[in-house]
Amino acid sequence: MGTVYCDLAISLDGYLAGPDQTRDTPLGVGGIKLHQWKFDEPEKHEREIEAIVDAGAFIMGRNMFAGPGAGVWDADWTGWWGEDPPYHGPVFVLTKHEHDPIPREGGTTFHFVTGGATEALDRAREAAAGRDISIAGGAATANQFLAAGLVDELRLHVAPVLLGSGARLFDGGALTDLVQVDARATPRITHLRYARA
Amino acid sequence: MGTVYCDLAISLDGYLAGPDQTRDTPLGVGGIKLHQWKFDEPEKHEREIEAIVDAGAFIMGRNMFAGPGAGVWDADWTGWWGEDPPYHGPVFVLTKHEHDPIPREGGTTFHFVTGGATEALDRAREAAAGRDISIAGGAATANQFLAAGLVDELRLHVAPVLLGSGARLFDGGALTDLVQVDARATPRITHLRYARA
Repeated sequence: MGTVYCDLAISLDGYLAGPDQTRDTPLGVGGIKLHQWKFDEPEKHEREIEAIVDAGAFIMGRNMFAGPGAGVWDADWTGWWGEDPPYHGPVFVLTKHEHDPIPREGGTTFHFVTGGATEALDRAREAAAGRDISIAGGAATANQFLAAGLVDELRLHVAPVLLGSGARLFDGGALTDLVQVDARATPRITHLRYARA
Repeated sequence: MGTVYCDLAISLDGYLAGPDQTRDTPLGVGGIKLHQWKFDEPEKHEREIEAIVDAGAFIMGRNMFAGPGAGVWDADWTGWWGEDPPYHGPVFVLTKHEHDPIPREGGTTFHFVTGGATEALDRAREAAAGRDISIAGGAATANQFLAAGLVDELRLHVAPVLLGSGARLFDGGALTDLVQVDARATPRITHLRYARA
């Protein structure tokens, strides 16, 4: 059975996105700085970048798919990722509002799950067929799965950035101890990998 | 002129101490786990352990010296560190209540400063005579100096521990960006060193 992992870029002060997230600035003020290492020096982080999307199925929150704000779906919205999203597999989006699947190029299909985390994980497990499952974000979704003890492996890419406020990881309580299984420090980013103790 | 540094053991979720700090459990529930690496494998972290107290003067908050709770001083209290505290130099304790200096063995003297962070830093600078100055903690004091832009170098020892709540670093707002100047990952702890950008 595949591992359930959570692979996130995070500020030194613990945020996955800065304050004031909007559809124009989905990562909030300063949030893009957490991801700069992937664009600036991809060759130095090849293994870590590939691992982010090396899963058989993905789970994400409604906000990660469509930005902040609840309510019914905007019929034209198909995600931030253009015609060929980087997932190349099924993505299960947690939502309160039903939506038909949105197939994209390259094997990515967004499915919409109204039955909560457990239903999403069941469907992802079935779709992944033994491959790993990624809890892709955002913070609320990651916190929900972490607090429920559903995450086997946590990978953090710690950027030397302080965002001051925003969407904070580990804000969900009920946490277990971890074992550090790998770590690699580079001048721009520190890669940390933990397993459940 | 010496560097002002802040050298702290921190949980992966950003706490310097766990919840429910008392005089019996000054690090709060689980907080001791952040420091276990120093006791278990000191020989693997010699450089980092020495650097923690390699300063000409120290500044700490009232809670770090005497535990939580405000009010006048307990006349018998001389700190947690026994006869020969590890500082071997002057320690300036931020407080609202005057107190005569407390000299200890090995060169440590606790001085009590009622004029706030600026007065403490002025006195520490003079006492350090060109050597570095350590902002020793706890979280409120570290946050105060960080938010005021008074810290030149931040050293964090990130433990694979989740405390869930407690005394959180970076809870003071008004933060600048950092440059990562050194990092060393070991299975038990990750040493990160940052300078002000």
